[in-house]
Amino acid sequence: MHFVAALDRKPQMRCILGLSEGVVTGAADGYARMADKPAATLLHLGPGLANGLANLHNARRANSPIVNVVGDHATYHLQYDAPLTTDIEMLARPMSHWVRTVPDADHVSAYAAEAVAQARTAPGRIATMVLPADAAWNPTEAPLQPPRPLAPRRQVGADRMRDAVQAIRSGKRTMLMLSGLALRERNLQVAGRIAQAAGVRLLAQQSNARLQRGAGRLEIDRVPYAVDQALAALQDIECLILIGAVEPVAFFAYPDKPSRIAPPDCTVLELAAPGDDLEHALDWLASELKVPADTAIALPSLARPPLPAGALTPVAVATALAALMPEQAIICDESVTSGRSLFQHTRTTPPHDFLQLTGGAIGLGLPLATGAAVASPGRKVICLEADGSGMYTVQALWTQAREKLDVVTIIYANRAYAILQGELEQVGAGVPGVNANRMLNLDQPALDWVKMAEGLGVEAVRAETAEAFCDALKAALARPGPFLIEAVL
Amino acid sequence: MHFVAALDRKPQMRCILGLSEGVVTGAADGYARMADKPAATLLHLGPGLANGLANLHNARRANSPIVNVVGDHATYHLQYDAPLTTDIEMLARPMSHWVRTVPDADHVSAYAAEAVAQARTAPGRIATMVLPADAAWNPTEAPLQPPRPLAPRRQVGADRMRDAVQAIRSGKRTMLMLSGLALRERNLQVAGRIAQAAGVRLLAQQSNARLQRGAGRLEIDRVPYAVDQALAALQDIECLILIGAVEPVAFFAYPDKPSRIAPPDCTVLELAAPGDDLEHALDWLASELKVPADTAIALPSLARPPLPAGALTPVAVATALAALMPEQAIICDESVTSGRSLFQHTRTTPPHDFLQLTGGAIGLGLPLATGAAVASPGRKVICLEADGSGMYTVQALWTQAREKLDVVTIIYANRAYAILQGELEQVGAGVPGVNANRMLNLDQPALDWVKMAEGLGVEAVRAETAEAFCDALKAALARPGPFLIEAVL
Repeated sequence: MHFVAALDRKPQMRCILGLSEGVVTGAADGYARMADKPAATLLHLGPGLANGLANLHNARRANSPIVNVVGDHATYHLQYDAPLTTDIEMLARPMSHWVRTVPDADHVSAYAAEAVAQARTAPGRIATMVLPADAAWNPTEAPLQPPRPLAPRRQVGADRMRDAVQAIRSGKRTMLMLSGLALRERNLQVAGRIAQAAGVRLLAQQSNARLQRGAGRLEIDRVPYAVDQALAALQDIECLILIGAVEPVAFFAYPDKPSRIAPPDCTVLELAAPGDDLEHALDWLASELKVPADTAIALPSLARPPLPAGALTPVAVATALAALMPEQAIICDESVTSGRSLFQHTRTTPPHDFLQLTGGAIGLGLPLATGAAVASPGRKVICLEADGSGMYTVQALWTQAREKLDVVTIIYANRAYAILQGELEQVGAGVPGVNANRMLNLDQPALDWVKMAEGLGVEAVRAETAEAFCDALKAALARPGPFLIEAVL
Repeated sequence: MHFVAALDRKPQMRCILGLSEGVVTGAADGYARMADKPAATLLHLGPGLANGLANLHNARRANSPIVNVVGDHATYHLQYDAPLTTDIEMLARPMSHWVRTVPDADHVSAYAAEAVAQARTAPGRIATMVLPADAAWNPTEAPLQPPRPLAPRRQVGADRMRDAVQAIRSGKRTMLMLSGLALRERNLQVAGRIAQAAGVRLLAQQSNARLQRGAGRLEIDRVPYAVDQALAALQDIECLILIGAVEPVAFFAYPDKPSRIAPPDCTVLELAAPGDDLEHALDWLASELKVPADTAIALPSLARPPLPAGALTPVAVATALAALMPEQAIICDESVTSGRSLFQHTRTTPPHDFLQLTGGAIGLGLPLATGAAVASPGRKVICLEADGSGMYTVQALWTQAREKLDVVTIIYANRAYAILQGELEQVGAGVPGVNANRMLNLDQPALDWVKMAEGLGVEAVRAETAEAFCDALKAALARPGPFLIEAVL
C-alpha cells in the first residue's frame, strides 16, 4: 500500500492496471519484447505472484527482462502465519533468474537497483524482489542507489568462431539456427548473405520472442511445431550452428519418437548464446568467411493477395491479413492450431514484427498484445488468438479499453482445444469418447466473444464468412483503439 | 493425454472442464467443503499448476481435501528442457501438504492411492501427484492398489481437556473459538449449551470453510476483519480456548498495531486442533463441565424482513437476501467490503451453509460456488461476489452454464478495489492521487457484467434499485440453472 501511495510521488511512471496478474506479467513481457527494456510488475503476496507465474514462464523463455515487485507481510508479522502468508521465494524461483527479499527499509534502494540490473543482464532476466510491508513503510536515511552499470554483451570467443568456420568450410550440410536478436532485420540480412555465399541453410527456432519479417526483409522459416515435420526439416543436416538459439527438441515427448530434432549424428555447435553479442558474432562470421558485403540475397517483394471470399477458414483469415495488414504492424501470435498456415501466407506483407508464445503456457496472447501496444504507440498490434487460450486471460481486453490501446484482436473461434485433440492422436491415445470430449471441446455453450469483449469495454463484431471478416478487419484497422473480431471457423 | 483418454474407460467419473485452472482448483475446494471428500483436479505441467495455486492456497487454509494430478513431460524428456519444462514440485510445495512425482507406470496405482489417503487425512490436505507422460502411457503389470485405510480423527488428550476445564472453572473471562467441523449444526448446539451453562463466550474464526447457521441454529459471531474491531471483540478475554480454530491474528500488519488479536496477557489453550475429533472434544468438554443435556439455549427463529426499496446498497442486497433466501441455500461469500453487513442481516433466514474466502487470495467465489453446486444437487447456491475479485475467475460462469448448475451470482458492482482503498487508509499511506487511483478503481470503462455473463452462457440482468434487485433475485431463485445479477451500488 505504501508502494501504491508512492506512485503518486512519481507521476512520470505510467501505471497500468490488469484485472488479474496473468494480464500484468504477460503485458510486461510484450512491453519488454518491443521496448528492449524491462517493465516492472506489482504483485500481491504469494497468490498474486502465483497468478502471474504462467506468463513469467513464457517471458523467461523469451529472455524478456522483467522486474517483479511482490509485496509481502511486514517481516515481524510472518511468524503469525496470517491467511495470506506463503513462501513467496519458493514460488518465484522456478520462473525467476534472481529472487531476493528486501530485509528492511535501508536496503530497498540497493535491492531495487540490483533487480533492475539483473533484469537488464543479457539476454534479459526475470528479477523478483519481495518487498515486506515494513520495508516499504519504515523511514530510511540510506542514500538512493544509482543504477548499476551493465556489462556489455559478451563477444564470442575465437575457439567457437574457429569451430563454426571450419564446420561451414568442411562441406558438411550445415544449418545456422537463429533466435533472439539474430532475428532483427539487420542481423537477418547478414545471416542471409552468409547463407548465400557459404551455402548453408538458415532456420529460426520454433518459437521466438520477436522476428522481423515481411517485404524487403530476409525470409526465414522456423522449426515446425509438429515433431514429424520438424524431424523432416532437419533430417539431412550434418552440422547445426546455434546463434542465439537453443538446440531444437520436441515440444512434448511421443512414444517411439526422438526428443532431439537434429539427427543423432549431427554435430551441434553453439557459436553464440542468447545473451552474447549476436550482431558482432554474425558480422565476424561473415568476415571470417569472406562474405562480400554486396552478396545478392533474395528478399520478398510486397505482394498483396486478393481478398478472400466464401467460407471463413484459417487460410481465409491469413489471406485477409496479408491483404490488409498495415506497415509496421506487430503480430502477437497465440493462434495455436488455427494459425499454422499463417506464417506462409504472410511472407510478402509489409514489414512487421512477429511475436510468439515462447514457453507454451497458453494465455499469453491478449496480455502480450497489451504490453506491446504500450511500448509501441503509433503502430497497430494484431493479436491472433485461439479461443481456448484467449479465455485464460480475457481480462486483458479491459486494460486495452482503459488504456485505449491500438490492438485488433482476432479470435479463432473453433470452439475446441484443437491442439489437445491433435496431441491425443499424436501420443496414440485413441479416439476421444464422452468424457475425453468434454475435456477437449469448448462448445455447449458456445462462447460469445462479442458480448464478452463489449462487457470488457472493447468494440467487437462476429464474422462467419470471409467477406464479413474482411469488412470487419478493414474497419478495425481504420480506427484507433482496441477492437475484437470473433472469426467463427 | 493418456489420462484424458482413460477417462472414457471410467464413465462413472464426472469430468468437468474449467476454462482456466483457477476455476478448477476453486471448484475442487467448493466440492470438498460440501461433500466432505476430495475432488481431483487435472492440471497441465508447471504453468497449469501455477494458474491454480491461488485457489489451492485458499483450499489449504480451508483444510479442504484435494487431489491434484499434474501432467509432466515423459521422464526421459525432462533433460532437454523443452519449452514447458518447469520445476513442478517446487511450485506445488508451498500450497500442498504432500507432493510426489510418480517414477514409472508400475507406481501409478500406489502413488494415486497414497495421494487420496493423504488428501483424506484429517482435517483435509492438498495432495499433489506429478504424473509423467511415460508413467501414464507405459504398460504395467503392477496390481491395483486398494484404498489405504484412514486413521480415525485423533481424540484430544486428557491433559488438554483438564487445562481447558480448569480455565473455564477458574472464573477467568473465557472464550471458546471455533472453526472447522465445530461449526456444523450439531456441534454448535453442544458449544452453545457449554457457553450457556459455563458462562463462557463463543466466537468463530474470522474466516471459515463452512458455517451452518440461520433459524433454529446456534448463532455465532466471527472475529471481525478490521483489526480495531477484532481487538475490541477480544479485549477483555483472559483465556482463549481453540476448538478447531487457530489463534486469531491481524490479516495484515499495520504500523503501531499488534499482530496478535488476543490481549497480551491472555492465555491461549488449544483444546482441539482442526484435524482432531471436534465432536468428541465438545461432547467430552460438556460432560466434564456437567452441562445438562437440556440446557436451554437461545436459537434465532425464522424472521423475514420486508423487501427493501429505494437505493440499491449493500444493506439492501443483504435485506433482499434475508427476505427471499430459500431453505438450505449455500452462500459462497466473496463479497469483501460490500458484504460486511451481510452476516448480521441474515441471522434469521432459513438454515443455510455459509462458505468463506479462507486464504485471502481473491478469485475464489465463482469457482467455489461452482464446486459447491456440483456437490449439492437440489440446493440453491448463492454466490456473493465483489466485482474486483469476480474478475479473477469470471471464466467459472461458463462451467456453471455447461453443467447447468443452480448458482445465483450476485455481483456487488462498486467499480473499485474498495478493500484496497480501505487498506491504504489503514496503513496511513495517505489520500490516493492520480496514479494510486488508477490502481484502485475499476471504472473507465465500467465492466458490463450482464454482457460478460451472457457471453459465457449465463442469463443475467442488471439492477440499479432495490426493487429491481428484488425482482431479479425472485426470478433467479425461481428457475433452475445459473443466473447472474449485477447489483450496481
